[in-house]
Amino acid sequence: MKKKLGRGVAIVGAGMSNFGAFPGKATRDLFVEAFSDMIASVDKGLDPNDIEALYIGNYSSDLFEGQGHTAPFMADWTGLTPRPATRIEDACASSGVALRQGIIAIASGLYDVVLVGGIEKMTDLPTSEVTDTLATASDVLYEIPAGFTFPGFYAAMATAYMDRYGATPESFMRVGLKNHENGALNEKAQYGATIRQVMDSKIAKAKAKGRPEPTWADEMEFMHDDRANPIIAWPMRLFDCSPISDGAAALLLVSEDIAKSFSADPLFVIGTGQASDVALHDRQDLTTLRAAKLAGEQAYEMAGLKPEDIKAAEVHDCFTIAEVIATEDLGFFPPGKGYEAAEEGLTRRNGPKPINTSGGLKSKGHPVGASGAGQVVEIWKQAHGSAGERQAAHDVNLGLTHNVGGTGQTCAVHIFERR
Amino acid sequence: MKKKLGRGVAIVGAGMSNFGAFPGKATRDLFVEAFSDMIASVDKGLDPNDIEALYIGNYSSDLFEGQGHTAPFMADWTGLTPRPATRIEDACASSGVALRQGIIAIASGLYDVVLVGGIEKMTDLPTSEVTDTLATASDVLYEIPAGFTFPGFYAAMATAYMDRYGATPESFMRVGLKNHENGALNEKAQYGATIRQVMDSKIAKAKAKGRPEPTWADEMEFMHDDRANPIIAWPMRLFDCSPISDGAAALLLVSEDIAKSFSADPLFVIGTGQASDVALHDRQDLTTLRAAKLAGEQAYEMAGLKPEDIKAAEVHDCFTIAEVIATEDLGFFPPGKGYEAAEEGLTRRNGPKPINTSGGLKSKGHPVGASGAGQVVEIWKQAHGSAGERQAAHDVNLGLTHNVGGTGQTCAVHIFERR
Repeated sequence: MKKKLGRGVAIVGAGMSNFGAFPGKATRDLFVEAFSDMIASVDKGLDPNDIEALYIGNYSSDLFEGQGHTAPFMADWTGLTPRPATRIEDACASSGVALRQGIIAIASGLYDVVLVGGIEKMTDLPTSEVTDTLATASDVLYEIPAGFTFPGFYAAMATAYMDRYGATPESFMRVGLKNHENGALNEKAQYGATIRQVMDSKIAKAKAKGRPEPTWADEMEFMHDDRANPIIAWPMRLFDCSPISDGAAALLLVSEDIAKSFSADPLFVIGTGQASDVALHDRQDLTTLRAAKLAGEQAYEMAGLKPEDIKAAEVHDCFTIAEVIATEDLGFFPPGKGYEAAEEGLTRRNGPKPINTSGGLKSKGHPVGASGAGQVVEIWKQAHGSAGERQAAHDVNLGLTHNVGGTGQTCAVHIFERR
Repeated sequence: MKKKLGRGVAIVGAGMSNFGAFPGKATRDLFVEAFSDMIASVDKGLDPNDIEALYIGNYSSDLFEGQGHTAPFMADWTGLTPRPATRIEDACASSGVALRQGIIAIASGLYDVVLVGGIEKMTDLPTSEVTDTLATASDVLYEIPAGFTFPGFYAAMATAYMDRYGATPESFMRVGLKNHENGALNEKAQYGATIRQVMDSKIAKAKAKGRPEPTWADEMEFMHDDRANPIIAWPMRLFDCSPISDGAAALLLVSEDIAKSFSADPLFVIGTGQASDVALHDRQDLTTLRAAKLAGEQAYEMAGLKPEDIKAAEVHDCFTIAEVIATEDLGFFPPGKGYEAAEEGLTRRNGPKPINTSGGLKSKGHPVGASGAGQVVEIWKQAHGSAGERQAAHDVNLGLTHNVGGTGQTCAVHIFERR
């Protein structure tokens, strides 16, 4: 059954805070930065009083900051009290799903102007507690007692994928190299440096300290070095894993009919999809995410598009294997061919199917509840040709975002059009 | 500006688990119980495959159970994977707000059949940790360092109210007495006993153990006894505070046009309202909740009704003072007159404005994320004349629910009609 929204929705503003580690800043501070950045992007100007409701994606301010009930605080700190403020939680897909709720809310006729946000403040906790907190996004009754944490889950997917399709750890390294190449050109990225820059800086540091200089022939040798790029959960090494991050993003959604009064060039939402799945331990196949496939199919069907129509996509590369699988689940490449596409450079920003021009979660950072909304900020920039040096080689009039929660128990996919 | 939903929505099924303390049961178990109870209430039958999406209200499975990403688990355990499953968090208003999202989602045209749930599992933690977890629903940066916990917040409201309007601690005790009177007739209530029954049982226990028997002349003397009814945060005593509870509730929402194919007697949603507010420390007035007033006004306006039209209401009596304030914020009684109405018995189930016929959060229990959806279960029963001995004296064709998050930083109000 083909589903249709009651009326069209457009994005007319998109902004984000820097992603990184910001001691002393709470999510409310980061959200104010994202909100201000979003307002600056509304080219015909925004009176914040026009905003009628807020949907805030957040994974676990409860565990990360000891603060629950986060949505009304975001309303307060942006001056939007007493607007209805609703927090959406679907693990790392929280703000992708919040976006979907914002779209649905406008389509319902109840609101014309909605603020969608994503927030997460992860770096106050020690790394081991962050890992434990993230693990609560899996099945704590059946999976955590088996000793799994997230690098382990995705390592299991990676080994299953390698076994079935013949990919190697180098296939995944190509994804990390590419995403750092893009992120190096993103001034808001947490790790805005190419792998070569990281390598050169390590060599320079050793030199400066009079230590023996490492002798890496090239980035791939660096990537294989157990000290430079340690194994986290084989085959996932450090540069296969997204970092622990603080950050926020904000999107302004309006009904299609008033979009032009906010922006000369709105980004129309032409497809939305969301699906759930069982926990990883219960799945038949570890080499694909069913929720992502279904969410993608829903979005394509609503948009009346095919995977080949998409000009650029931000996909959920919490680990490099996740990006490879995403490009297959979304139909960009056939099952088992995503790793070859990555190796061949097809997903680089000058390739036919640019993926994660922002640097992706890997290089830009992964403040989990903010990542889905952050993806849309990049598509907004690519669609408007304002992505600077990391602008895709071809025009991005059609873009897609793919936001995954946990091991794929949630996925939200959205398709956007600049007309 | 009067807001209108794109299309009408009706509730065609409503169920709940028992509320109480259930060691060994996780939220997923409780939700399955609520789901089964809901299915049994759909008089023309339900094929669960017709359900297209889930909205799950939950405050903090993260802190209570160490489990985040709860929504897809609820889909899995009710056999509804891969439907989109979204968790809504607005503290104790989580499932009232989840209900609103379910309504909006159907109004948008995207879905015709939506499951709205509420879940919370609080009793695994020691009481002090439950108190700390609930405190995360207030402002942890500005309020918790001042030593506040929730009984303290509501005690501050109670003293401000007493100071302004001349109410006494006895005024609030009347609310507790009345709610236990109702809850004693609710087979799913956590504390399903009248205060007199509690009193008599304490006397009987003393007798059985050969201890000196307490000599309480009546319930009011019992309520004033510092050992029987200890002060938690003056003037709030034990029987002014809702308990720590486990529980779940489930509601089936469908678009108005198909409602009759599920139920001979659907409960139509004719009004919805939601608002946010600043944290308590930032407010001018502690004797009213602005978010509740605004949410109520929105719901009345949408329904085209006035407070006097409402035949019965379930309001958020997390503390007895909260019920008094709620009955004023909703316009049932003028400001400062709610306590007199309680004293005069106007809110008893045989009175002109029955409030919390279910027993309210006080007696029925307060599994925080489930409470808002649980309120609707009671209105469903009252509207259908199926509330048994606690059925209101007059016909309840129009009912209202009022669900508050934290100290009132969120409020959701809904109005229902049996036609």
